[in-house]
Amino acid sequence: MTQPKDHPAHATPAAPPAAEQDDATRHREKMQKRKAVQDQEVASKTLEKGLLLVNTGPGKGKSTAAFGMVLRTVGYGRKVVVVQFIKGAWDTGEHRALERFSDLVEWHALGEGFTWETQDKARDIAACTRAWAVAKAAMQRPDVVLVVLDELNVALRYDYLPIAQVLADIAGRTPGQHVIVTGRNAKPELLEQADLVTEMGQVKHHFRAGVKAQQGVEF
Amino acid sequence: MTQPKDHPAHATPAAPPAAEQDDATRHREKMQKRKAVQDQEVASKTLEKGLLLVNTGPGKGKSTAAFGMVLRTVGYGRKVVVVQFIKGAWDTGEHRALERFSDLVEWHALGEGFTWETQDKARDIAACTRAWAVAKAAMQRPDVVLVVLDELNVALRYDYLPIAQVLADIAGRTPGQHVIVTGRNAKPELLEQADLVTEMGQVKHHFRAGVKAQQGVEF
Repeated sequence: MTQPKDHPAHATPAAPPAAEQDDATRHREKMQKRKAVQDQEVASKTLEKGLLLVNTGPGKGKSTAAFGMVLRTVGYGRKVVVVQFIKGAWDTGEHRALERFSDLVEWHALGEGFTWETQDKARDIAACTRAWAVAKAAMQRPDVVLVVLDELNVALRYDYLPIAQVLADIAGRTPGQHVIVTGRNAKPELLEQADLVTEMGQVKHHFRAGVKAQQGVEF
Repeated sequence: MTQPKDHPAHATPAAPPAAEQDDATRHREKMQKRKAVQDQEVASKTLEKGLLLVNTGPGKGKSTAAFGMVLRTVGYGRKVVVVQFIKGAWDTGEHRALERFSDLVEWHALGEGFTWETQDKARDIAACTRAWAVAKAAMQRPDVVLVVLDELNVALRYDYLPIAQVLADIAGRTPGQHVIVTGRNAKPELLEQADLVTEMGQVKHHFRAGVKAQQGVEF
């Protein structure tokens, strides 16, 4: 895009302001074209529907982005149910903060900790089954616009819940409701059914540099 | 992992309970080993420091995860400053929700819209420069534990701000403070300086299926 210095435009005294003017004009023209493309794109999308969103991958931000969506939703005064399949009654910043929205957010931390903490498969399965009953009930409520199924992928990966039943219950939820599923190693069947899948990739992590889990960042 | 049906363990009447018992024992032993590894990992991380986090990539969730971290931080009663480099005074759910935390969150929407909306490069640069001054001031405050630089990557990509100055100001921030930068196409120099980089990859997107931007999902 650089012009050679001996280009005719640089030969006259008026050249530098003209070049600046040209640059501004070129920028405006380019952006006008881009806006036309954007506007057309936006106009082409007309459907509204309840979405199944999946945040997966090894990187950070899967649950955090789900809680960001909770924040957005309560900002509009709409109701949200959060079901945590792995985390138990942990004291997290997001949970504490959402207590200010207790009129809008129902929070069910029904896990019993990571599977390597409980060391008891039957207990893990029982906890997941109880959590799923709560999730299913939330998905049938027309007043709930968003259901977060936090770390459900972990429960599915270990086959603590039957995938076919889970997918059927999600598909049969109240119309218009959004559901977000988080956790690593999402099952292909879930990705197939999803409307939006984001893979959080880990490019660089501070744990590798010996930094510990810190308040506000990890919990 | 499936055992052949003619395995000796299945030959005796007592076999099924024994097999179940074995399975539970194997699971417990495997998880005990896994826990030992996890515990060792956690113990090996002792550093505490203010982190520079970058959420980039074409997928959804970059800003949303940053706002999830804001939520977590205010849950602990700590102060946050959000500076938006592209978005202007848009009415978003996350902004409305965080008004309930006006004692803890300062929100500066200093952008003038997408560059294809303004169509004026000089104006975009002026807006970014003003926003950077606000960001720099926030990064010098010891009472602020988290600064969100939303869509800064977009401003850097178009060279609306000098990358060297931006990196120096981030490096010179108040000790212990976390900074999150969001936006596509993060510059390599920024990734180099970052402690945590997450690349949000787009696996599947509902816009492709003609679904429009919806309240709670996109804004």
